[in-house]
Amino acid sequence: MDASHFEHFALKIKIWIEDEKGSVVFGAGRLRILQAVDRLGSLQAAAKELSMSYRAVWGKIKATEDSLGQPLVARRAGGTRGGGSELTPLGKALVERFQRLQTLTETAADDLFQGVFTERDRD
Amino acid sequence: MDASHFEHFALKIKIWIEDEKGSVVFGAGRLRILQAVDRLGSLQAAAKELSMSYRAVWGKIKATEDSLGQPLVARRAGGTRGGGSELTPLGKALVERFQRLQTLTETAADDLFQGVFTERDRD
Repeated sequence: MDASHFEHFALKIKIWIEDEKGSVVFGAGRLRILQAVDRLGSLQAAAKELSMSYRAVWGKIKATEDSLGQPLVARRAGGTRGGGSELTPLGKALVERFQRLQTLTETAADDLFQGVFTERDRD
Repeated sequence: MDASHFEHFALKIKIWIEDEKGSVVFGAGRLRILQAVDRLGSLQAAAKELSMSYRAVWGKIKATEDSLGQPLVARRAGGTRGGGSELTPLGKALVERFQRLQTLTETAADDLFQGVFTERDRD
């Protein structure tokens, strides 16, 4: 195999967490939802930004909360319009750790790709 | 974050190779196609086993061949029924290296998952 073929290619990677039954616990889609809720302070606003229904956004969050047995999102106290949501400490930790895991995994995968596909021919 | 939440979960990972334009060069689906051709000695038999059309199987192989500028599959010489296909050395090398990359990346990702999600709480 001629390594030069692969010099201009990139390895892509997608990661997600599953439970024992093979159901998704968390992944890139739910990360985007939690990030939007954190930034916008509202499930409704997050849903709008992500072009999803409120029901779909809430369903994804609820599914992860059920897997973990603890809330990721809480009603925000006070506020002039008396509403809004914010991430719980668990929600914030999940966002931070999953992002970190994504970055670390991408870096590791890219290093392995370079090693496996640009090493000198053995065949 | 309580690490015990994640003890029974597994990190799942999908990898694929893209070119500069973001087109897929190779991935798990094409790996399965080449493995089936290698084992069955025929694109037609591979297509049947994978419940794909011959046209779809050939199209996927052709797309990767076009990206690499070299054939992955060649007509098999001889044989009692005078037909069949086999992988070229490049085709075999691609199968072997992509499988190796998958295994290495899965192992690395799993180690990172354990490290990031079961480390002692910092929050």
